[in-house]
Amino acid sequence: MKNKFFQYIQQLQDTITSKLEEIDGSGKFKEDLWERPEGGGGRTRVIENGAVFEKGGVNISQVHGPLPAAMQQYFKVGEVDFFACGLSLVLHPKNPMVPTVHANWRYFEMYDKSGTVIDSWFGGGQDLTPYYLFDEDASHFHETCKKACDAHNPSFYTKYKQKCDEYFWNAHRDEARGIGGLFFDYCKASEEMSMENWFAFVSEVGNSFLESYVPIVEKRKNLPYSKAQRTWQEIRRGRYVEFNLVHDKGTLFGLKTNGRIESILMSLPPHVQWVYDHHPEAGSEEKRLLEVLAHPKDWV
Amino acid sequence: MKNKFFQYIQQLQDTITSKLEEIDGSGKFKEDLWERPEGGGGRTRVIENGAVFEKGGVNISQVHGPLPAAMQQYFKVGEVDFFACGLSLVLHPKNPMVPTVHANWRYFEMYDKSGTVIDSWFGGGQDLTPYYLFDEDASHFHETCKKACDAHNPSFYTKYKQKCDEYFWNAHRDEARGIGGLFFDYCKASEEMSMENWFAFVSEVGNSFLESYVPIVEKRKNLPYSKAQRTWQEIRRGRYVEFNLVHDKGTLFGLKTNGRIESILMSLPPHVQWVYDHHPEAGSEEKRLLEVLAHPKDWV
Repeated sequence: MKNKFFQYIQQLQDTITSKLEEIDGSGKFKEDLWERPEGGGGRTRVIENGAVFEKGGVNISQVHGPLPAAMQQYFKVGEVDFFACGLSLVLHPKNPMVPTVHANWRYFEMYDKSGTVIDSWFGGGQDLTPYYLFDEDASHFHETCKKACDAHNPSFYTKYKQKCDEYFWNAHRDEARGIGGLFFDYCKASEEMSMENWFAFVSEVGNSFLESYVPIVEKRKNLPYSKAQRTWQEIRRGRYVEFNLVHDKGTLFGLKTNGRIESILMSLPPHVQWVYDHHPEAGSEEKRLLEVLAHPKDWV
Repeated sequence: MKNKFFQYIQQLQDTITSKLEEIDGSGKFKEDLWERPEGGGGRTRVIENGAVFEKGGVNISQVHGPLPAAMQQYFKVGEVDFFACGLSLVLHPKNPMVPTVHANWRYFEMYDKSGTVIDSWFGGGQDLTPYYLFDEDASHFHETCKKACDAHNPSFYTKYKQKCDEYFWNAHRDEARGIGGLFFDYCKASEEMSMENWFAFVSEVGNSFLESYVPIVEKRKNLPYSKAQRTWQEIRRGRYVEFNLVHDKGTLFGLKTNGRIESILMSLPPHVQWVYDHHPEAGSEEKRLLEVLAHPKDWV
């Protein structure tokens, strides 16, 4: 399974980066190959200062070896070996009318001393962070997520949509990071779902990513915007930074387990502002966004 | 003591904000009074878009009541009452030749059920974060810190300078946040130092702040700078954000104990950039700064 999934994310990275370059028209992904001293490595692809994408990364990695101490504590296991691989992407468009998007699909295995797999699971999801809210875009994103889920289990979309709202909650601001999507973790073999079934589910979700996001980018990338709207985008990007550095488990894990810092922090937006005690005007589009973020809603 | 120190920081806030307004020439501090539902409150003063200070805050607060659960765990005590007050300041100048500065001086008391003080201590310090390193500025800042320390104990400067280097360490970047200063905590009554002695020490340090920082601002605020130097400042400000959101105990504490978010996060810089895998050129001033930050040095 680990080879199968790793092969899948390698191909998916190619598919996604070539489609994104096509949409951008001028920006190109720069590739960095890196090695992890303890075992494994990654292929980081970053785009900067494109016509559409101001900054973004579509990264894959596969790491293995003894489970780091911090992860032993987290998973409440002793000294075991592990293998993990995944694809992580974050895209920060230049135009504030185009939402930021994040996705991650991953697979994890743990082994006893004889090398036998003692545990394995899939995890992942994708979520959208608009600066200006087009309801039809939010619905399109969620409908695409739901379609991918429904092909595998009619309960998945509702369950994983809710987990997403819970996970991407900027608790200190009492608001969601964005308008959500899917979040699932510890997807293990059961009577209902074999690991093959989970692979089919996760890869269907991964394959649906471009369908969920690209039509939104195409529709919004050439909309005009003002300097004030750009400022609002940069202020909201500050909240994105706050979530990733204060609350995001994946980021904090990477920082504390000697991950490749530049690959982890490629998620941070290019230009960001913090304005003291900023409040948008009543009745404005900015204010409407905040109201939706304070009370996550159903989009399907 | 709590009244004495709270009165001291109220006066110090006035002294510092009026001097900073004088230096800025055009920016004015905006004052926000706030109340903490569980007891106490604060006086936040924030300056934005000044001629010299692009953003900054000089805040005081005094909070009291039952010790929040997260703080009980942290201090390893049961259900006790507490009182805490302090002054916190962060200044982000516009000109990249002028360093960012941070300072905090605080006093803490804990009480048993009868209201008797069971523990009390002072804490605090100040530290400087340059974007371009003028060795004479770093030396001036540290010499002023040392002078304030030496009047009370000849071992304090060396000890608290080292603690500062340890505390403001951006571990995931393997570099210091800035060029340090002083950091002390849990300064409690002992045979050598009564609480009155500690008050005299902390207030001398607080009183030395303007002397440590203002001459540097005056000397550098009108230096010319390029767009590339401004970009470097904004990239370095990203590291400041990373430290404050990932490592700074005070910030994380505030965010997790329902503090006043806008007063806590006034420390975040106004305009910030994250550039993927940025490295300054060999032999450049930017590179020299990084080398010093990777290996904290003695400035006196």
